[in-house]
Amino acid sequence: MMKRIGILTSGGDAPGMNAAVRAVARKALHEGLEVYGINYGFAGLVAGDVFQMDESTVGDKIQRGGTMLYSARYPEFANEEGQLKGIEQLKKFGIEALVVIGGDGSYHGALALTRHGYNAVGLPGTIDNDIPFTDFTIGFDTAVNTVLEAVDRLRDTAASHERTFVVEVMGRGAGDIALWAGVAGGAEDVIIPEHDFDVKAVAEKLQSSRERGQKHAIILLAEGVMHAEEFSKALSEYGDFQLRSTVLGHVVRGGSPTARDRVLASQMGSYAVELLLQGKGALAIGIQNNKLTTHEMTDLFDSKHKADLSLYTLADELSF
Amino acid sequence: MMKRIGILTSGGDAPGMNAAVRAVARKALHEGLEVYGINYGFAGLVAGDVFQMDESTVGDKIQRGGTMLYSARYPEFANEEGQLKGIEQLKKFGIEALVVIGGDGSYHGALALTRHGYNAVGLPGTIDNDIPFTDFTIGFDTAVNTVLEAVDRLRDTAASHERTFVVEVMGRGAGDIALWAGVAGGAEDVIIPEHDFDVKAVAEKLQSSRERGQKHAIILLAEGVMHAEEFSKALSEYGDFQLRSTVLGHVVRGGSPTARDRVLASQMGSYAVELLLQGKGALAIGIQNNKLTTHEMTDLFDSKHKADLSLYTLADELSF
Amino acid sequence: MMKRIGILTSGGDAPGMNAAVRAVARKALHEGLEVYGINYGFAGLVAGDVFQMDESTVGDKIQRGGTMLYSARYPEFANEEGQLKGIEQLKKFGIEALVVIGGDGSYHGALALTRHGYNAVGLPGTIDNDIPFTDFTIGFDTAVNTVLEAVDRLRDTAASHERTFVVEVMGRGAGDIALWAGVAGGAEDVIIPEHDFDVKAVAEKLQSSRERGQKHAIILLAEGVMHAEEFSKALSEYGDFQLRSTVLGHVVRGGSPTARDRVLASQMGSYAVELLLQGKGALAIGIQNNKLTTHEMTDLFDSKHKADLSLYTLADELSF
Amino acid sequence: MMKRIGILTSGGDAPGMNAAVRAVARKALHEGLEVYGINYGFAGLVAGDVFQMDESTVGDKIQRGGTMLYSARYPEFANEEGQLKGIEQLKKFGIEALVVIGGDGSYHGALALTRHGYNAVGLPGTIDNDIPFTDFTIGFDTAVNTVLEAVDRLRDTAASHERTFVVEVMGRGAGDIALWAGVAGGAEDVIIPEHDFDVKAVAEKLQSSRERGQKHAIILLAEGVMHAEEFSKALSEYGDFQLRSTVLGHVVRGGSPTARDRVLASQMGSYAVELLLQGKGALAIGIQNNKLTTHEMTDLFDSKHKADLSLYTLADELSF
Repeated sequence: MMKRIGILTSGGDAPGMNAAVRAVARKALHEGLEVYGINYGFAGLVAGDVFQMDESTVGDKIQRGGTMLYSARYPEFANEEGQLKGIEQLKKFGIEALVVIGGDGSYHGALALTRHGYNAVGLPGTIDNDIPFTDFTIGFDTAVNTVLEAVDRLRDTAASHERTFVVEVMGRGAGDIALWAGVAGGAEDVIIPEHDFDVKAVAEKLQSSRERGQKHAIILLAEGVMHAEEFSKALSEYGDFQLRSTVLGHVVRGGSPTARDRVLASQMGSYAVELLLQGKGALAIGIQNNKLTTHEMTDLFDSKHKADLSLYTLADELSF
Repeated sequence: MMKRIGILTSGGDAPGMNAAVRAVARKALHEGLEVYGINYGFAGLVAGDVFQMDESTVGDKIQRGGTMLYSARYPEFANEEGQLKGIEQLKKFGIEALVVIGGDGSYHGALALTRHGYNAVGLPGTIDNDIPFTDFTIGFDTAVNTVLEAVDRLRDTAASHERTFVVEVMGRGAGDIALWAGVAGGAEDVIIPEHDFDVKAVAEKLQSSRERGQKHAIILLAEGVMHAEEFSKALSEYGDFQLRSTVLGHVVRGGSPTARDRVLASQMGSYAVELLLQGKGALAIGIQNNKLTTHEMTDLFDSKHKADLSLYTLADELSF
Repeated sequence: MMKRIGILTSGGDAPGMNAAVRAVARKALHEGLEVYGINYGFAGLVAGDVFQMDESTVGDKIQRGGTMLYSARYPEFANEEGQLKGIEQLKKFGIEALVVIGGDGSYHGALALTRHGYNAVGLPGTIDNDIPFTDFTIGFDTAVNTVLEAVDRLRDTAASHERTFVVEVMGRGAGDIALWAGVAGGAEDVIIPEHDFDVKAVAEKLQSSRERGQKHAIILLAEGVMHAEEFSKALSEYGDFQLRSTVLGHVVRGGSPTARDRVLASQMGSYAVELLLQGKGALAIGIQNNKLTTHEMTDLFDSKHKADLSLYTLADELSF
Repeated sequence: MMKRIGILTSGGDAPGMNAAVRAVARKALHEGLEVYGINYGFAGLVAGDVFQMDESTVGDKIQRGGTMLYSARYPEFANEEGQLKGIEQLKKFGIEALVVIGGDGSYHGALALTRHGYNAVGLPGTIDNDIPFTDFTIGFDTAVNTVLEAVDRLRDTAASHERTFVVEVMGRGAGDIALWAGVAGGAEDVIIPEHDFDVKAVAEKLQSSRERGQKHAIILLAEGVMHAEEFSKALSEYGDFQLRSTVLGHVVRGGSPTARDRVLASQMGSYAVELLLQGKGALAIGIQNNKLTTHEMTDLFDSKHKADLSLYTLADELSF
């Protein structure tokens, strides 16, 4: 019978990570387990930066952005040597199983621990929504709303001055943030890695809008395609659209999580503890078609997240 | 071949209605249709308060709360007489089919029009999330986030003064807003119509929390159960919890819609036009398990929306 | 030479109190002083709920609502007996002087301590803006913006349904919150204790607006005048204005402070330490005509805060 | 007796411009004047893009960002020739006097018109707060709060990853936005054009903080000093502070204005109409020491706005 579990967050921070940590801790305590927080991800595990959590440790944290357990890169955990050092610490603290919250990079560490006999379950925590086998990651909804707020602000200025804004947003290789914010922000165009595009066609669409009387525009550009400056330069070859470039960088990673992200984090955190109690490991939790799901981590590594391209068509049809 | 459609909003306003109106109008224009806006719901239809929309009519509206088409109660539309007056106006303006955005009350009007030969499709627009055959209504996500922001604020005060806040929220007969905001806000208790409750047990839980050191609490109460004052009075019989009551009323109906609501509204609005183009009517659009669905309106009238009670269990297990 | 000071917050919590606590602590540490936090206001002082603060104690707090030092009512401190108990604790902890952050009620305690030889300086921390000799209190700007956000939301619904909202806001005996939010929110009428009003005239103004085409309205009502329900009832005698009442209660006390409140709190907190270093006590800090000022607390008790009635005229002239 | 006035907005848009336009229009109507809106600043004046406003023209606008009258650059108005074209239009529309809302660049146009016999009064509308003889410009408070929200978000990420963020903010040659946001955001350092700085000293301060345990930092950098990338590069010469650069660009210009900006805009707009009614022109309105003031525009051109350097000292003393 398992008695003690650990939690860590890894990779880039995302809003809702604290809600997930809280859910794991509270659910574990509710089930009579002991819970240990591990600071700074796998680096902290190896360093033994570990502490016992009680219910008050996670009090007043559900609404906070960032991660109370900190995060750090630690490429050394890809090697057996790093992993063995981590396992030494797990032994020392009597931790029998783990929840790992982070991007799919973190899942490699979780899989390695499971193979060494320490079950580890993964929660998808990243604003980028780029993890396979989940429709949504923890942090994505908040990031989209943060981008959207910026788009709404930019539209005030764009409309006042009849400008075209090229708004570059995060997402690494995935276009989900750009796509959702584009549909929700009524963007005149959305440029994402998952769909080809033609700068000339973008220019013609803008030109045609201008001729019909709408003289400002917002273009959402996923960072995975190219940088805003580069895109603006290419676009400016086709006409004077009063272009301005804006890069929404790290601002989009922070902030208090939305309701959706907090609920998703709570559901997933609770489910992770249930899976550990069932003696399972090497599983990645997802939400698909509005249901919690699990997949073998090994399957994830061979897969690629797919953006919902029906939104691309939608964005296109509703803007013109 | 259909050439001209109409749109109206009916019942209580909800954030995202404008995004839905925009989507219907833009999609219709994209498909080569003419679009007419009908102000003040069925009342305005009967009064002939109708105007042609072009793409600029719905420009700069996606982010606005409320409904640009206004809304009004009009019980007379339940009668054949009222319906015939409406149809006269449809004839006059050459409107062949309609999109109706509103609560399930509005669907009765839509069904009547369909039966008279004017196809009408319904979109679920209400903050209450109380419409059958859809997991989410347009406006719900925004309302939950608005409540959540208030809960976060109240927690500041609750913690500073060690108080217990009973927060009454809208939802008519449904507990969904209370439930989601309760999970997302880390509420110490959630009281909804869909689940029985015991004031004494609530009191004991609060008492036990206080003894373990957490001296403030937030209780989410759905208006469909009882009023906050009444609940507070009942609770105060069991101890001094430094109770304060707060009623989050109409404030929760307004505001700029969230990304989720704008995307949902856009998807549903576009789909409604597709259905009308296929010659369909008397259908209610929903989103179930993350997919757009349709159901016969007649089926809706025999059904009842069900809250996701797994969230109730989750709220309970994560708070103690 | 003074070596050690204390800080406490008293009365109702207000956004910016933490920024003030941080400023007092950091400035004191910067000047080489030791700083002690006293929890739960004068009650905590008497109980000896006192702890040493260092720079990290106040880290990551400037943006938080509420008060990290908690607050509590403690009428017993009005008596010599209560005061002597407090002084016993000051002696025990070696605290030589204090900063008291709160409403003018708290200043009585500060004055008493000064008279017993322990210099105490007061900062105006309350959302109500009802303290004499200061144009603004810490928390007021945030509260006005919170009310304003609610007013903006309500206008969405009011416009959609052509309703009149009576919005009751906090402020105890002062109308400042209603007045500022009324001007900023474009309210059709503002009802405050500092100015007489005539329900019939309000009704006529609404009627005249309706006739000229504006069919919705927002009325800001200070709680010091009467309750929203009562006002609505009186108003409804003169016509059907589609009235709805909303009470913005404790929600308005919480939330992250605005820039203005954080800057004001920082300036005042720093200044308080300077005054204590100069050996001064029984002084209330204010901001008047954009300059930091001090007044004898004894002078405050004979005075009354005055609302800026030029704003009343302004609200009136700009709405019609 | 004057009968008809005009309003225009010029230069970069700023939140609160619409509140100012509304105030001018409503106050003028209240005084029995006719009011004409001029689109696109001086360019629109010359082009005759002019329309009559009534009370509903400015309804539901007080809360909107941007400017409903649009803005445009028009350097040709610096020449007599351009001015005469503008005056032709004023004659054509019977406009006898004007309110000009914008940066001090716009005041040159206003002065020219006054000299040609058309009184023009100027309101300081810019986020940069860089206009002489006013403590605050319309839009500044909103911009500072927008920056502050971003700083709060960045701190989540900075703390989670122990990073140092260099945040570049707008302000042209003025450091006010950086200064206020720096104090309010608890920035570890603030770099502005009005005060010299030493990259090495900044590095030492960061190093010393890190050694004492605070491992993240936020540095506010005014764009008038240098670009964030450049500053980060210079700083990185002195150690590895896990630097990230963020540029808060046009996002900061938009958004719904704060209460403070709306009230200030309303006061100034109303006052501008009073001055025109008194037959005055070539005056710039300001707020100084919390009182509305006027200064000859000619005096402004010889002066320079001064930042409040007491805030610089404050920022420095409270961070370490």
